[in-house]
Amino acid sequence: MGCLDKIQSPSDLRGLDEAELSELCAEIRRFLVDSVSRSGGHLASNLGAVELTLAIHRVYDTARDRLVFDVGHQCYTHKLLTGRREGFEHFREYGGMSGFPKPSESAHDAFVAGHASNSVSVALGMARARTALGADYDVAAVIGDGALGGGLAFEGLSDAGHSGEPLVIILNDNGMSINRNVGGTADMLDRMRTRPEYINFKRWYRSVFAPHVPGLYRFTHQAKRWIKERVIPENVFDDLGFEYIGPMDGHDIHKIETALRWAREQKKPCLVHVVTRKGHGYAPAEQRPESFHGVGPFDPRTGEPLNAEEDYSAVFGRELTKLAAEDGRVAAITAAMSEGTGLDGFRQAFPKRFFDVGIAEGHACAMAGGMAAQGMIPVFAVYSTFLQRAYDMLIHDVALMHLHTVFAVDRAGIVGKDGQTHQGAFDVAYLTSVPHMTVYAPASFAELASMLRRAVLEDEGPVAVRYPRGGEGDYAADHSAAPCAVLREGSDVTVAAYGAETACALAAAELLEKQGVSVEIVKISRLAPLDIEPVAASVKKTGALVVPEDVCEAGGMGEQILAGLALKGAAPSKARLVNLGDGILPNGAPDELRRVTGLDAEGIARAVRETLDGKDQT
Amino acid sequence: MGCLDKIQSPSDLRGLDEAELSELCAEIRRFLVDSVSRSGGHLASNLGAVELTLAIHRVYDTARDRLVFDVGHQCYTHKLLTGRREGFEHFREYGGMSGFPKPSESAHDAFVAGHASNSVSVALGMARARTALGADYDVAAVIGDGALGGGLAFEGLSDAGHSGEPLVIILNDNGMSINRNVGGTADMLDRMRTRPEYINFKRWYRSVFAPHVPGLYRFTHQAKRWIKERVIPENVFDDLGFEYIGPMDGHDIHKIETALRWAREQKKPCLVHVVTRKGHGYAPAEQRPESFHGVGPFDPRTGEPLNAEEDYSAVFGRELTKLAAEDGRVAAITAAMSEGTGLDGFRQAFPKRFFDVGIAEGHACAMAGGMAAQGMIPVFAVYSTFLQRAYDMLIHDVALMHLHTVFAVDRAGIVGKDGQTHQGAFDVAYLTSVPHMTVYAPASFAELASMLRRAVLEDEGPVAVRYPRGGEGDYAADHSAAPCAVLREGSDVTVAAYGAETACALAAAELLEKQGVSVEIVKISRLAPLDIEPVAASVKKTGALVVPEDVCEAGGMGEQILAGLALKGAAPSKARLVNLGDGILPNGAPDELRRVTGLDAEGIARAVRETLDGKDQT
Repeated sequence: MGCLDKIQSPSDLRGLDEAELSELCAEIRRFLVDSVSRSGGHLASNLGAVELTLAIHRVYDTARDRLVFDVGHQCYTHKLLTGRREGFEHFREYGGMSGFPKPSESAHDAFVAGHASNSVSVALGMARARTALGADYDVAAVIGDGALGGGLAFEGLSDAGHSGEPLVIILNDNGMSINRNVGGTADMLDRMRTRPEYINFKRWYRSVFAPHVPGLYRFTHQAKRWIKERVIPENVFDDLGFEYIGPMDGHDIHKIETALRWAREQKKPCLVHVVTRKGHGYAPAEQRPESFHGVGPFDPRTGEPLNAEEDYSAVFGRELTKLAAEDGRVAAITAAMSEGTGLDGFRQAFPKRFFDVGIAEGHACAMAGGMAAQGMIPVFAVYSTFLQRAYDMLIHDVALMHLHTVFAVDRAGIVGKDGQTHQGAFDVAYLTSVPHMTVYAPASFAELASMLRRAVLEDEGPVAVRYPRGGEGDYAADHSAAPCAVLREGSDVTVAAYGAETACALAAAELLEKQGVSVEIVKISRLAPLDIEPVAASVKKTGALVVPEDVCEAGGMGEQILAGLALKGAAPSKARLVNLGDGILPNGAPDELRRVTGLDAEGIARAVRETLDGKDQT
Repeated sequence: MGCLDKIQSPSDLRGLDEAELSELCAEIRRFLVDSVSRSGGHLASNLGAVELTLAIHRVYDTARDRLVFDVGHQCYTHKLLTGRREGFEHFREYGGMSGFPKPSESAHDAFVAGHASNSVSVALGMARARTALGADYDVAAVIGDGALGGGLAFEGLSDAGHSGEPLVIILNDNGMSINRNVGGTADMLDRMRTRPEYINFKRWYRSVFAPHVPGLYRFTHQAKRWIKERVIPENVFDDLGFEYIGPMDGHDIHKIETALRWAREQKKPCLVHVVTRKGHGYAPAEQRPESFHGVGPFDPRTGEPLNAEEDYSAVFGRELTKLAAEDGRVAAITAAMSEGTGLDGFRQAFPKRFFDVGIAEGHACAMAGGMAAQGMIPVFAVYSTFLQRAYDMLIHDVALMHLHTVFAVDRAGIVGKDGQTHQGAFDVAYLTSVPHMTVYAPASFAELASMLRRAVLEDEGPVAVRYPRGGEGDYAADHSAAPCAVLREGSDVTVAAYGAETACALAAAELLEKQGVSVEIVKISRLAPLDIEPVAASVKKTGALVVPEDVCEAGGMGEQILAGLALKGAAPSKARLVNLGDGILPNGAPDELRRVTGLDAEGIARAVRETLDGKDQT
């Protein structure tokens, strides 16, 4: 029986001695590598945070205290320690445990996580609620150095430092976000890591004065502050009002524990700076941490991925590199996702036209606006869910001046195992509300290449090309020449489809043909501006319309098409929308999610039959 | 003939001597007070930036160099100096000059402005484009200390400092954003303002070594850096990679000029810290700068406003204060808009439950999520256009956990004279796409009070109450009990209206009645979830539908209603949408804008007649 078997709840951690803790860490790492090699998930960040997580749980009672994770992909050890070991059996599958913190899963998960840089704000809100309501619990947030560079974190730190609220921010600094960290914030942390004297001075000073001569401590505290401000380099955390302690070894449980207890006792905003190593304890991940950030199943002995089919991201990166070779104005921008968005090749080929701005989608978008205003053709490659951060900049810094800026919107639609915080469920709604934005939805690699070329070299104003995560489906043709056109003729019902749903609609039509139902498929290649004529003509013939799409219903193409038809007095007599409804979709394999949402071939076929049978949608 | 008459273009500034510059500044101030007292607009910030603007124009050629304003309400002197004096005659009126930088108005306006904190990102994009394309011009940005606290500015600074790009950021620090500035960033700047020794040391050092012994300068530069890092407190700008100079008197043209020339010559990212006084030179604005941020017409001798009718913001603030007295969980949040959103009374009544987070809408929203998770009832009062910044946080940090958080969305719909960056044209689209968000649209003060009470004390999950800028129209009733109901019976056509359009629709119905057209008005009080049955029943009777709304068409209620009717097989045979189209609407008085967009009573009446005549909308 290993150490891990003895941990039924976090309180069991507190009785362990040094040797047991060490063995427990090793065992957790073996468990994580083994588990993630089968399920896929986030590995390097979790391996780096094992000791930190143990230290946190030895100090805080997370069932009562509130522990807020930032991004949250580093929560696996936390889940293991809070009674969810069995959850790793169906980890990230549909109906199984989420790979991110989820309050509905456990009282130990204080808040949802998935997007970056929100944890300080959330924790401050919790601390303020505690104080206002007279409650008694501690609040702590764990934020990585990558997420710290996001503007939202700065807003939170600025308010929190000034607030005086008892609150501990734990900076888990591994020098990486997903790729090697970039920007002035990263440089600043680099320098802080090489300045041990500050904390040593503080430590010495505190250990000598604080416990023994509290009165003198208070008196000298003012003197010290005077000296410190003049002698010791302050950092931005001091500047913003935090008590800062660090940097310290993030793999030394006792050091972290001591610092956390000290910080908690200050009863004011404190920042504990912990330096960890991403991938710690597993050689392949230590050597190539960026490749072990988010992974599919891999061989645990070698770290080699088990399959590596070509995906939309790779095609995008290759095609954009070609376009950059043709036109010197083309630039690529990523927000810390060079590898994920397929831009590593571009970076190597055109380093001077490649810009990784860190986790800062709003800045990326506004900067792209500035570049476009001065004659560049910036292409910002970004996941659909993260571009939500830049909604205001899309309107204000790009669309108001009709600047030619291209958005390569990756992971649009159903994304899968990362769950509710990562699905690209809202981009059709928010992109089509941006003034005069052209929006393309390729349904194959070939269409992505064609549309990207048109977006970059031919179109004007803001253009988005949204494409799904993963590989191509059964549809590999290129019908992108027309913005909207009949892809398959039929007489009983019109199915208007785009993107990943194109292949599903075609498969549904095959199924229905065998059942004697003749389906006409209108393929929409350009979502905005929408050319509704082909849909209207088809609906006039068939009288019935089904619109499947893997995004939320509000503001989706289904509503837009129905409204457009109604305005023309051409509304179908029977209609049905198949989509993600509210847009909240849990973790699960994409195929499984497509099945349960009725967006696979069988689901579309079923919707068509029910529509023709006149069944009410609701 | 005054000094100002001699300035035909910025180049005329360069020949002026000290006395002439001083007289010019005084003359500009008189002009601004006189002009804004008639037109309304932004005053205090412009009075504070006169010398700064002159210094900038003596150093940069803004027709060629790129000068990016942040927010941009401080651009009046810039407009005066760049050949737009006549523009102040119809300033901020429909068809007249905008109160914000606008590239379509002048080559001297490099980029749109209106929202805060984007200027560093935009300027960096321009600088990078210049370098990548081998062009030759300088880039500078002017950002206020309030906007500096926004996370977007931090993202920009972090990237810019690291970039090495020649770029000058001018920090116009008046210790205010709109109200007195708050948060850790403000504290930090406060301390920086009291530390003149740093710049003095730098100055002395530079003046002694740089011009005379360049080799020694380079050598000692490294030594100096070593010493500086250990002896002189660094600030966050140094940390992020900027060359920092300041703080300096922002009303001393020559000091600013010298600093700007020095910064430009560095050929790297520089930050020039200038301390100005908001309202400088006009006693009423110096004494109450927050009251002279954005003003309506006033008496220039006393500074007293010419009219002060009660508005929605005041009603909101009063009602929320009542609710807070009833329930100790109610808290109010503002992003630097305490006065504008009507919260000054709340702040005085419940200071411990009032949170001004500075210009940080994303943080405000995520923090509200944290508060709600721990049992508070946070109410974030924010302008519609600025809440765009928090779209991602609305989804991720509020809606995913269905947290009971209230958004008091002020300035929804047509806002008026502030123009395209300030209209609340997108909130219906983006709010109704947020999962399970309840959205109310009061059409009178009484309805605002009823809906706010319901939103705060009765509803669950996220709730938005969106209301217009300014006073009540002719409709003052309260029909908010039903989410959607017939307000006026008729037989020829259905007009579905909400919010400010309710009064216009009623007036249109009166007009049409005289012309023999019988209008049924269905009033929508709750936009989401939408109760479409009353509309369907009415349309079934009339067969025709017109939906007027002062927001963009995409994702608006018009599309949603038509889609909902079509899904029920209840589409009208004739339909028309009247709205802001793409959502881009220039400056102008609200009544004028309502007229030109066809959203006033006459416009709705015309749309109804054309619909009944079967004229095509397009």
